Amino acid sequence: GDLDYLRDGREIYRRSFATIRAEARLERFAGPLERCVVRMIHACGMVDLADDVEASPGFAAAATAALRGGAAILCDTEMVAAGITRRRLPADNEVVCTLGDPRAAELARELATTRTAAAVELWRERIEGALVVVGNAPTALFQLLIRLEEGWPRPAAVIGVPVGFVGAAESKRALAARRHLVEFLVVHGRRGGSAIAAAAVNALASEEE
Amino acid sequence: GDLDYLRDGREIYRRSFATIRAEARLERFAGPLERCVVRMIHACGMVDLADDVEASPGFAAAATAALRGGAAILCDTEMVAAGITRRRLPADNEVVCTLGDPRAAELARELATTRTAAAVELWRERIEGALVVVGNAPTALFQLLIRLEEGWPRPAAVIGVPVGFVGAAESKRALAARRHLVEFLVVHGRRGGSAIAAAAVNALASEEE
Repeated sequence: GDLDYLRDGREIYRRSFATIRAEARLERFAGPLERCVVRMIHACGMVDLADDVEASPGFAAAATAALRGGAAILCDTEMVAAGITRRRLPADNEVVCTLGDPRAAELARELATTRTAAAVELWRERIEGALVVVGNAPTALFQLLIRLEEGWPRPAAVIGVPVGFVGAAESKRALAARRHLVEFLVVHGRRGGSAIAAAAVNALASEEE
Repeated sequence: GDLDYLRDGREIYRRSFATIRAEARLERFAGPLERCVVRMIHACGMVDLADDVEASPGFAAAATAALRGGAAILCDTEMVAAGITRRRLPADNEVVCTLGDPRAAELARELATTRTAAAVELWRERIEGALVVVGNAPTALFQLLIRLEEGWPRPAAVIGVPVGFVGAAESKRALAARRHLVEFLVVHGRRGGSAIAAAAVNALASEEE
């Protein structure tokens, strides 16, 4: 009947990734970046996501080296943090989300900005060499870029995939225009989100599919 | 410059929802279901998601009444649970994810199925009148439907938006074919995911936009 389903998790993954590789335009990507794009597509169910992906040439190497070296992973929301599969991380890397920190609400009032943007302020001491993951909030990505231009220490790489209708596309264009500042991965346009963000981290963390 | 950004969270929400209502085909939806679809679109950045949404006629009323009555929210993954905004919940509703329960791994071996499907087995005692949210795993939705057909107590409603390339579309068709069993909301096709699932819950939980 229509409730008979494939129960073998590994086989489900194998068929999923085979379908993605058969349907998506992946010619622009190789190695860890290709695996990254495949897993991002897997997380959202849309093979044409590949067409909106842009990464700096050194992104994948910088991000994987940082993870292997034990870099912290700074996430804009708890949903991104929840989506990162801890057992895939190569160095038991710390996964950090400062959005719930009481100081973020206070800073938001002081700086007259959103709480997600204010939470970025609390990354200051941990950002050097970290992997930054913005999966939801355009305002967090804008705030990060402002601080990097002001001379903050540099993260190893930034995954910038905020989603939505106000500032998402603009913040990702702004990141992609700053390859002199930082290695980056973006999904241009309105699409993005925590699942795509976490999938990118999970792909970079381990070669296992 | 290109880093000037809108910093007023309420105004960002207002403009986002106005854009969605201007662009999406929402004529099929009204009241709490319309708010639900708007928020699902907000979570993924795609206004055409509306075209793939199907809900049973009693879905929104059943889901909102259940939440107000203190129903538990049963989630297939931690990412869905992390996306539910606790302060929007009308009755401090319990948010439950059994995927990390050690018994889920054991049951997966016994039943020769995925861990997400096995985790559904642990919903048995809490499912009556609950709001069920499947945001990731088609196998969890299949397993749930099998148990409901076998006579399990009925949840108040099921949000079925698993994502992906193997079983996602099929499991959602199977749910929509069972309106005699349970009130439902689905996004047909491959699209779905934890952000869309959590957004649907957040919309049903409170009228505040």
